[in-house]
Amino acid sequence: MNFLIINGPNLNLLGVREKSIYGEVSFDAYFEKLRMQYATINLQYFQSNVEGELINEIHKVGFSYDGIIINAGAYTHTSIAIADAIAAVTTPVIEVHISNIHKRESFRSVTLIGGNCIGTIAGFGLDSYRLAIEALNSHLD
Amino acid sequence: MNFLIINGPNLNLLGVREKSIYGEVSFDAYFEKLRMQYATINLQYFQSNVEGELINEIHKVGFSYDGIIINAGAYTHTSIAIADAIAAVTTPVIEVHISNIHKRESFRSVTLIGGNCIGTIAGFGLDSYRLAIEALNSHLD
Amino acid sequence: MNFLIINGPNLNLLGVREKSIYGEVSFDAYFEKLRMQYATINLQYFQSNVEGELINEIHKVGFSYDGIIINAGAYTHTSIAIADAIAAVTTPVIEVHISNIHKRESFRSVTLIGGNCIGTIAGFGLDSYRLAIEALNSHLD
Amino acid sequence: MNFLIINGPNLNLLGVREKSIYGEVSFDAYFEKLRMQYATINLQYFQSNVEGELINEIHKVGFSYDGIIINAGAYTHTSIAIADAIAAVTTPVIEVHISNIHKRESFRSVTLIGGNCIGTIAGFGLDSYRLAIEALNSHLD
Amino acid sequence: MNFLIINGPNLNLLGVREKSIYGEVSFDAYFEKLRMQYATINLQYFQSNVEGELINEIHKVGFSYDGIIINAGAYTHTSIAIADAIAAVTTPVIEVHISNIHKRESFRSVTLIGGNCIGTIAGFGLDSYRLAIEALNSHLD
Amino acid sequence: MNFLIINGPNLNLLGVREKSIYGEVSFDAYFEKLRMQYATINLQYFQSNVEGELINEIHKVGFSYDGIIINAGAYTHTSIAIADAIAAVTTPVIEVHISNIHKRESFRSVTLIGGNCIGTIAGFGLDSYRLAIEALNSHLD
Amino acid sequence: MNFLIINGPNLNLLGVREKSIYGEVSFDAYFEKLRMQYATINLQYFQSNVEGELINEIHKVGFSYDGIIINAGAYTHTSIAIADAIAAVTTPVIEVHISNIHKRESFRSVTLIGGNCIGTIAGFGLDSYRLAIEALNSHLD
Amino acid sequence: MNFLIINGPNLNLLGVREKSIYGEVSFDAYFEKLRMQYATINLQYFQSNVEGELINEIHKVGFSYDGIIINAGAYTHTSIAIADAIAAVTTPVIEVHISNIHKRESFRSVTLIGGNCIGTIAGFGLDSYRLAIEALNSHLD
Amino acid sequence: MNFLIINGPNLNLLGVREKSIYGEVSFDAYFEKLRMQYATINLQYFQSNVEGELINEIHKVGFSYDGIIINAGAYTHTSIAIADAIAAVTTPVIEVHISNIHKRESFRSVTLIGGNCIGTIAGFGLDSYRLAIEALNSHLD
Amino acid sequence: MNFLIINGPNLNLLGVREKSIYGEVSFDAYFEKLRMQYATINLQYFQSNVEGELINEIHKVGFSYDGIIINAGAYTHTSIAIADAIAAVTTPVIEVHISNIHKRESFRSVTLIGGNCIGTIAGFGLDSYRLAIEALNSHLD
Amino acid sequence: MNFLIINGPNLNLLGVREKSIYGEVSFDAYFEKLRMQYATINLQYFQSNVEGELINEIHKVGFSYDGIIINAGAYTHTSIAIADAIAAVTTPVIEVHISNIHKRESFRSVTLIGGNCIGTIAGFGLDSYRLAIEALNSHLD
Amino acid sequence: MNFLIINGPNLNLLGVREKSIYGEVSFDAYFEKLRMQYATINLQYFQSNVEGELINEIHKVGFSYDGIIINAGAYTHTSIAIADAIAAVTTPVIEVHISNIHKRESFRSVTLIGGNCIGTIAGFGLDSYRLAIEALNSHLD
Repeated sequence: MNFLIINGPNLNLLGVREKSIYGEVSFDAYFEKLRMQYATINLQYFQSNVEGELINEIHKVGFSYDGIIINAGAYTHTSIAIADAIAAVTTPVIEVHISNIHKRESFRSVTLIGGNCIGTIAGFGLDSYRLAIEALNSHLD
Repeated sequence: MNFLIINGPNLNLLGVREKSIYGEVSFDAYFEKLRMQYATINLQYFQSNVEGELINEIHKVGFSYDGIIINAGAYTHTSIAIADAIAAVTTPVIEVHISNIHKRESFRSVTLIGGNCIGTIAGFGLDSYRLAIEALNSHLD
Repeated sequence: MNFLIINGPNLNLLGVREKSIYGEVSFDAYFEKLRMQYATINLQYFQSNVEGELINEIHKVGFSYDGIIINAGAYTHTSIAIADAIAAVTTPVIEVHISNIHKRESFRSVTLIGGNCIGTIAGFGLDSYRLAIEALNSHLD
Repeated sequence: MNFLIINGPNLNLLGVREKSIYGEVSFDAYFEKLRMQYATINLQYFQSNVEGELINEIHKVGFSYDGIIINAGAYTHTSIAIADAIAAVTTPVIEVHISNIHKRESFRSVTLIGGNCIGTIAGFGLDSYRLAIEALNSHLD
Repeated sequence: MNFLIINGPNLNLLGVREKSIYGEVSFDAYFEKLRMQYATINLQYFQSNVEGELINEIHKVGFSYDGIIINAGAYTHTSIAIADAIAAVTTPVIEVHISNIHKRESFRSVTLIGGNCIGTIAGFGLDSYRLAIEALNSHLD
Repeated sequence: MNFLIINGPNLNLLGVREKSIYGEVSFDAYFEKLRMQYATINLQYFQSNVEGELINEIHKVGFSYDGIIINAGAYTHTSIAIADAIAAVTTPVIEVHISNIHKRESFRSVTLIGGNCIGTIAGFGLDSYRLAIEALNSHLD
Repeated sequence: MNFLIINGPNLNLLGVREKSIYGEVSFDAYFEKLRMQYATINLQYFQSNVEGELINEIHKVGFSYDGIIINAGAYTHTSIAIADAIAAVTTPVIEVHISNIHKRESFRSVTLIGGNCIGTIAGFGLDSYRLAIEALNSHLD
Repeated sequence: MNFLIINGPNLNLLGVREKSIYGEVSFDAYFEKLRMQYATINLQYFQSNVEGELINEIHKVGFSYDGIIINAGAYTHTSIAIADAIAAVTTPVIEVHISNIHKRESFRSVTLIGGNCIGTIAGFGLDSYRLAIEALNSHLD
Repeated sequence: MNFLIINGPNLNLLGVREKSIYGEVSFDAYFEKLRMQYATINLQYFQSNVEGELINEIHKVGFSYDGIIINAGAYTHTSIAIADAIAAVTTPVIEVHISNIHKRESFRSVTLIGGNCIGTIAGFGLDSYRLAIEALNSHLD
Repeated sequence: MNFLIINGPNLNLLGVREKSIYGEVSFDAYFEKLRMQYATINLQYFQSNVEGELINEIHKVGFSYDGIIINAGAYTHTSIAIADAIAAVTTPVIEVHISNIHKRESFRSVTLIGGNCIGTIAGFGLDSYRLAIEALNSHLD
Repeated sequence: MNFLIINGPNLNLLGVREKSIYGEVSFDAYFEKLRMQYATINLQYFQSNVEGELINEIHKVGFSYDGIIINAGAYTHTSIAIADAIAAVTTPVIEVHISNIHKRESFRSVTLIGGNCIGTIAGFGLDSYRLAIEALNSHLD
Repeated sequence: MNFLIINGPNLNLLGVREKSIYGEVSFDAYFEKLRMQYATINLQYFQSNVEGELINEIHKVGFSYDGIIINAGAYTHTSIAIADAIAAVTTPVIEVHISNIHKRESFRSVTLIGGNCIGTIAGFGLDSYRLAIEALNSHLD
């Protein structure tokens, strides 16, 4: 089983700097914990602030991997191109968000990519990623 | 640990009638399986087609239970009153949807209640409920 | 042949009180005349001001009756839940209105439930109900 | 009793050509059946694809006939001029549609002429015309 | 003189629980004080979270009482059905709100029922109810 | 000096029928009076309910006449094609309206053709046409 | 106790001229009655049709008086500047309207200043001013 | 016969300065010519850049003069207060504009005051004022 | 091979009059050149300013010709009726525009008929028609 | 070199009263410092809460001064009349704001006057005025 | 003659993978055919999923090549930056689309870049590119 | 003191090519002048057409530099991701624009990033950058 987690713009700052804001846990540390917890899965991770590189990555694994978990950050609300990439590949994709997008500015409630994913998990902090792995596992059964 | 699942309008039809449409599994059968899977949790279930009765139920358990999982059905998109009820109680609430609300009519992408919940899980079929229990468990740790 | 007429909020006031406003004929009297005119049909009648009870009633007869005639009153313009209930049942449903909804406030031109019904008959006073029976009879041929 | 049925743009194609799409029955054949069914009524028929000719016809009979049944086709959604013509004449007018306008593209739910008619009957196929005759007969009593 | 105060969804929580949020005074205690202050008036009280039951209550007293004071809570912003009920009865109705609805989310500035009431009093805490009694007394002179 | 008055849809009914509504004076009678009052001008008149015939007429005189006075009736609010015709010809065009278009339904405040005319005169009854002749005379000086 | 009533544009016409329209009672006469009824309060009155003079007056008393009652007339719906003035001063301000602003043109339902006041009282005729004094008295306790 | 011409903001600059932009003729010079042309009319003129002073002037003459001609300049598009003033007085008011308001920025096509006037004359340069006098004369016959 | 070019309102003025504006080449001259260039195709031409006559022509050839090239002029942006006609016939239709509709007023970017055509070619002057013939030829291969 | 600073509504309160809110520095004190810092410039200052007086002042200096710096306060978002005044004069005008208008209520992001100024400087506290003088100096070189 | 074809996001998938969806022909194969068909033209090809790289490429050739044919994919509907790049260069640009953008989701009918191109060709499959070369050739004559 | 100037898409063309359009001064030349004028500041410069590279650069210096001056070009109006990056870093950021964004197409008045910056300076040509340095210097005092 091959799963890829894709993180979009600004998510590289998570827990690395400004920990009082972004929390104590860096995404790398969290990712290692996830990997150990799901040791039987080949779990990979990719981050970029460039919209087109996210698309490139979706194309690269989207015909061979078993699942993609994507947190497209701010591109969630502006990128038809990422939405089209998700629709074009055959690998099932799950949309996750760390924060509850419905509690913030109104433009963050609109997801352009959600309709091309299997489903959406939002608001559970970093645990959203683990829940997405759980969801992928069930979906693939 | 006391959790309540609340289902809103038309969700009583799930798997009971018209199985070709709603799937083979009735919600009651699924609920029994969930209960067995999470045997240490006191898991309850409530369904009503009446908006005000959903509010009554949220009030009844919302100051004593450890978690509420709500699928408000069509009231998701029209009920400020249910959203207010969720904001008024102290029990954490998670919003779930069986289908991917972003794949359907555009009015179904708008959730009036999501902003008052911890988070939202949508699109994973009945498995959305199980994921919500997982999310509640993590959240309460 | 089993038909049910469902009337929504405030339609219980028709012709019972304030006759100068609502007309001399009570709905009960009109309903008796209809029943006699269509004596071979088992014609039933249900009214409620509670949105969820209208849904309950649609569920109750919507898999066994031959036709439903619904005047959802003000819920016509606000209830996705009733629209979903109509879509969920197998009995054909016809939407009726006593007044011409296009002659009144602009929000009354929008029917959320019309798209899930076979058709709509509006503006002919109480005669709209009789025309709906005619339409159901033709439709079922 | 003199009634006129007015059909707007593209309705000349009904059942004449492309029967697999528009149905087996031509409007002329249906109209002959209607005429026989309502033999005591002088029932006339007019069709044009030209908005202004529909207005001319409304003017021509709108001060002398007992009723007009109009299916304005696509002009329903764009013609204030036809709506004004209906408002200007003294003959009662009923709006009909063959298909359920609420089931189609959203711009078809808006009727500019409906507010100037007695009422609207939509969604019952060709039977909508017969129901309109029934409605006119009741209305004129 | 017979007046009825009607409270809508979630207003049953006022001062009963979570007093730090909703204030020390329960509505029942406040209501007793009001009753004593206006001892010559037969002052009644009704609360429900169910939209349709609020309509039922308006119908019940709306042709015999001298005044109704309604705080429709969240239904203020979504219920055409309650607005229609107020328009249908002959008893004068006053709309009250505890908080200033113009200081909160923008959707709370829109009152669907206000246009069918005599007037609106909003923002004065529980004192809004007393001011409404004063207003009714003047209006009935 | 050659001027043409063009009247659009439904304006043929002015003062001919339904005089209690449209006034005692027919447009023909009014037009004769105008002609006598401005005897030195070759004043012509054209009316049609067909949008395209109004365009044909604008083309016919729009490169040779000294002025056009147009009351496009309901096409004022819907016809980009007439607006384009006015822009295409070299004869100056003045827009007139009998009623005050800002006092009626909100869609009547929008004139698609006004921006391509020299100016607009609206609300003065039939006298709007005479004022337009006065305006043309000044404009041509 | 020092209270100031501020009336905005066109309210100088109240009851002075055109009594058949504006009522028999002039605001001055009403004001005298109010003063006598609340003899222990130093009640002042200011009216201007000039937006900036209303702001000047709010500044003048807004740091020393105990309460301001403002009927901003049409500026209610257009003046962010008056709203800012109310927010800038320390004296509590109550918004009043003589008519029910929700029964009139839709632009009158929008109050730009309401959100910066304690509360709003609208629809009770001149009695709205007395109710505001009552509300201020309670508020200041 | 007493007529008043009211000019709103920035119209004091007409023809006085920047003649290359505003034209060679000052409004004062034009006004003198108008006075001589209509010598039997007592024609007055008032200009202010202050919205409230325009209202004051409307009040001052609006119950005694025979006609008011108003060019409210930019307040045309923003002032409900001036619109209310026009509605409140008994003198008939005509709206004029020097330029064609439909040829400019889209916000200039919206007139808030036009609906309360008899009619509108726009686009004929300074001649718009003379046409308004003509229109008033006809209207008063 | 039978192709028909249909030109809508105002396109009869192309190159015939006002050559400085519309270019030196009349459509007739251009059409002759096209015919010679595509001598093996039976190329016909129809122009009308009347919306309904454009529909009539689409019906006339739309079940027998091999291709239609339509420049609907201003009706592009307002005519659902022409769009319905295109959808109703079996002949493939290509939409062309002489100017670039995205460079002009924003309402010209909206094409109501484009969605029912095979494709759109806009902005290449008269050459748009030749490109459409090329496109039809490829499409029919 | 003659420059005028114009401050609009409520800006007279700056630093005079309520210093905890508006800062310790009054505008007069700040203005004296500015004057000393730019001793070679004849720097004047004008403030009014009346929209029309701001227009009067723009007219007064707008054909002779070398620069105007305007903080129109709330009129920034509502006054087409001030925008027109700026467009009418020949003196270059710079728009300043003390706070960052994009950080506040959404209606404060819209500037009606900005498009008629040379440029905008917003968000730098009182330093915005000094930056505007710098900008004017560069612009006039 | 030097022409460049630029393809935007996701167009690298054309005909390479998922041939059942994207067609049998890869863009490379199609491009080779085009090159041979137009052997006298130096025809180049560039594809990127990165918005900024598309801009870089437009800058690179946009002052020296004779023509650019761009299919900006999803960036068509979201990228003002690409539109600005097209406006900034001197090489003429033609917009193409493989599918008919008016037949799909409504957001795909909006082209931000079309207004800065010579023209648009959409809906003819890969043949759209050939038609664009034809159009460029004519345009450059 | 370390400041970074960041220029977004298409700003690399400034003054390098097409000098008749973009001005004689290249940004590099201007930048050298700025550096000399502010010799005590370590002033750096970065330009990219790629949205994500702008974000990378903001991250790189946004926790160590003393100030960032950003002209995000067209991304100003579309990039929530850049806005989020500005909000995430601790270095103060100032938004600049060369042209007056309120004088151009309406979509250019909307800045998505302005609300996360200290302030905005727009419309002063290249001098906007120098003013931003001045503003940063004051801000850091």
